[in-house]
Amino acid sequence: MIGTQTTDKQNAMNETSPVCKTFNKNDSAKEFVPTANLDDVSEYQDLFEEFGASFVPKEKSLKSLIHDMCVEEESEDAFYIVDLSKVVRQMLQWKAYLPRVTPFYAIKCNPSPAIMRIVEAMGGGFDCASKQEIGAAALLLKGENDKRIIYANPCKLPSHMRYARGAGVEMVTVDNEDELHKIKKHWPDAKVIIRIVTDDSHSVCRFSSKFGAQIKDCNHLVSVCRELDLNLTGISFHVGSGCFNEIAFVQAITCAREVFDIAERHGFKLSLLDIGGGFPGITEEGKPSFIQIANAIRDLLDELFPVDQVQIIAEPGRYYACASHTLVTHIFARRKVHKINPEDDGSDYLYYINDGVYQSFNCLLFDHAEIKSVRSIDMSEDFEDGTGNEQTGPKLKSTIFGPTCDSMDCIVKGIDLPVLDLGDVLYFPDFGAYTVAASSAFNGFKTVIMKYIWKN
Amino acid sequence: MIGTQTTDKQNAMNETSPVCKTFNKNDSAKEFVPTANLDDVSEYQDLFEEFGASFVPKEKSLKSLIHDMCVEEESEDAFYIVDLSKVVRQMLQWKAYLPRVTPFYAIKCNPSPAIMRIVEAMGGGFDCASKQEIGAAALLLKGENDKRIIYANPCKLPSHMRYARGAGVEMVTVDNEDELHKIKKHWPDAKVIIRIVTDDSHSVCRFSSKFGAQIKDCNHLVSVCRELDLNLTGISFHVGSGCFNEIAFVQAITCAREVFDIAERHGFKLSLLDIGGGFPGITEEGKPSFIQIANAIRDLLDELFPVDQVQIIAEPGRYYACASHTLVTHIFARRKVHKINPEDDGSDYLYYINDGVYQSFNCLLFDHAEIKSVRSIDMSEDFEDGTGNEQTGPKLKSTIFGPTCDSMDCIVKGIDLPVLDLGDVLYFPDFGAYTVAASSAFNGFKTVIMKYIWKN
Repeated sequence: MIGTQTTDKQNAMNETSPVCKTFNKNDSAKEFVPTANLDDVSEYQDLFEEFGASFVPKEKSLKSLIHDMCVEEESEDAFYIVDLSKVVRQMLQWKAYLPRVTPFYAIKCNPSPAIMRIVEAMGGGFDCASKQEIGAAALLLKGENDKRIIYANPCKLPSHMRYARGAGVEMVTVDNEDELHKIKKHWPDAKVIIRIVTDDSHSVCRFSSKFGAQIKDCNHLVSVCRELDLNLTGISFHVGSGCFNEIAFVQAITCAREVFDIAERHGFKLSLLDIGGGFPGITEEGKPSFIQIANAIRDLLDELFPVDQVQIIAEPGRYYACASHTLVTHIFARRKVHKINPEDDGSDYLYYINDGVYQSFNCLLFDHAEIKSVRSIDMSEDFEDGTGNEQTGPKLKSTIFGPTCDSMDCIVKGIDLPVLDLGDVLYFPDFGAYTVAASSAFNGFKTVIMKYIWKN
Repeated sequence: MIGTQTTDKQNAMNETSPVCKTFNKNDSAKEFVPTANLDDVSEYQDLFEEFGASFVPKEKSLKSLIHDMCVEEESEDAFYIVDLSKVVRQMLQWKAYLPRVTPFYAIKCNPSPAIMRIVEAMGGGFDCASKQEIGAAALLLKGENDKRIIYANPCKLPSHMRYARGAGVEMVTVDNEDELHKIKKHWPDAKVIIRIVTDDSHSVCRFSSKFGAQIKDCNHLVSVCRELDLNLTGISFHVGSGCFNEIAFVQAITCAREVFDIAERHGFKLSLLDIGGGFPGITEEGKPSFIQIANAIRDLLDELFPVDQVQIIAEPGRYYACASHTLVTHIFARRKVHKINPEDDGSDYLYYINDGVYQSFNCLLFDHAEIKSVRSIDMSEDFEDGTGNEQTGPKLKSTIFGPTCDSMDCIVKGIDLPVLDLGDVLYFPDFGAYTVAASSAFNGFKTVIMKYIWKN
């Protein structure tokens, strides 16, 4: 615990860095069984219809669905299948397992109007990083910007701050002293939320090099809030995107409690905790599921932050976007490599598909993504539903390139694939997070077609 | 030289790879002195006015110009200064040093309407990689698509091929057998240009892993052209972008001559040589200048490709775009790092500017670019023209981040800078190649403002 209440900057800098308590996994956490039906999405059909979503019976396999769509599709552009019922089911699961925590969808992850609309309709809010994202959220919210938008970029352009204030946004995150002075100047009535650094060594994407106040600096930041007469309202953290240990959340929540206590010693009564993002959209080996994270923190939140005093929000992005999108591409060019010796290194076939690292696959560079397997559909044969038409025959080392003229535009090298033909389909499920969001139009290519579906 | 004329695929695969002649630098190349005035752009004022370009006297320093623009500018967005007279001067230089070679501007490098308009007005053509780029070029050319567009993506979507044909484009590059069959099906009257692999070990961006036919495969490809009755018209190569040895061009031109000879043995009389891209936009240490490359190849082209028989084109991108654009950003947030010990590793200051790796600085990931120095302007002081207001005082280790919420969005770490303040300007000259072209709108940020100027 931090004992000092000094507002002297030099003292604050020199004090020993306090260390938040550390935790081990609590394997004895009681099992939680939600009572609601988390699978029934029938009451959300109106929402699906807003986006012209086609109904697909749950028995229909993804592969069969893609085959049918590709047979019908006349354009040669890559496209996304967006399953809106998956977004609804994620929200139902969230409400069941973390009923006290309001999700503020991180628009940056995928600014899909359909995901945003479902989040809005089901009572969520929005984590916005810029003027443009605030504008998109405000269009949906029609007057509830004060309660349902958090401007959660700790470093903000003054013009964006003025825009947010003008739009009625109230909550804003801050993590350094210069930013507090900017708030005082451009947005003096904002509800200030200090973003703290937490241990993000358990996450794929670590943010602590760029954002977050050190715990040892919080006493000083709180005192500056007091000096500037700012409306310090809460604390936020972000364990990092792609978190692989739920203990990271437990530790961060405990740290946040300590900063609540620091603020109380300065006379602030904080009323908001923002537990950030890092919630997975799919279950991956070696990483906790959403349910495991929820089970690890649900009771702790009540224990440390009394229900009647503190509102709790979170900033999930991947959680809603990831599994809802499947990218569908096809092979439009192919090159057989003429090896002098069959044992030579390198691929036997090079394939070229209509999306690449400058478009949806920017996640390979920016989001630490890796393509470990590739699913293909042989479009020349009649399709048998069920297992689909598995390509037989030998598998050969293959390299998959994107469509641009740059050799950097390579999706995966040396992967085992059957011999594929021009027109065959490659598809990538769980491809909605940090893909289209940072896609460019380099060489004139950009995947923009969204085919909405829902399943019972 | 390849002696065999067999069309048997297996034989073609097994034959020993022929090696093109290698060359050493020819230091005795005679000096070439152009007679035209390469600096006078006065007759192009109408072109500059089409884009509302402001006149800036050549005595005005870039730093002083940026200072004045930033004082006047009310928006807080990053912007580009685009000096159109630099594009004109590059074209004048090209025509003087390589009068026989028609430049086809590689739109992908920077699809700037202003650069494209100048290239078009001064007689150049366009290297297009997709339907979208062909559409943009066709808008300008108004009916000369047959002679002034080359569809230079060796791997093409059939729908894009049909679009090109419909738009009257004739020239198209190909580098594999599957693609020849696609041409036969979708564009049987195209002027086919075989792109060959050349030694690209002298270049920063190497394309041979993705594109280009091996010389040993050319005999077979030419025979397929004959079997399919295709209109084989020429040969192209690309030494790679950022070439650092002009000998790469000399070797590639000699290889192309050998493939001309192969084609002649199959009864084709080729009439087009495309010497690709790789021409630098600025002079860099350790790399040949455009003039050095031109001097190395000018006479060789005439020697190997008779003037009255072969048209020669090239695909420069960087050459026109690089120096024309200066990116102007400003610091909108700052964080002083409270080091426990002053000797600790890491930066003393973190700065956040309004463009980053998801926008213009994508070149750090995609184009092997590196930020070696950063130029800054102290906006708090009166500006003295000439040397500008150099920031004095100690330089501290500094890190510069882009504006998004991602910690990957880091432009440079640990660079020496004076202590800068919020509102101070950082600018990046020679920033027009492969920057805006692959910029995304991640987090809602995108640099789109272009301020056109011209200098006498």
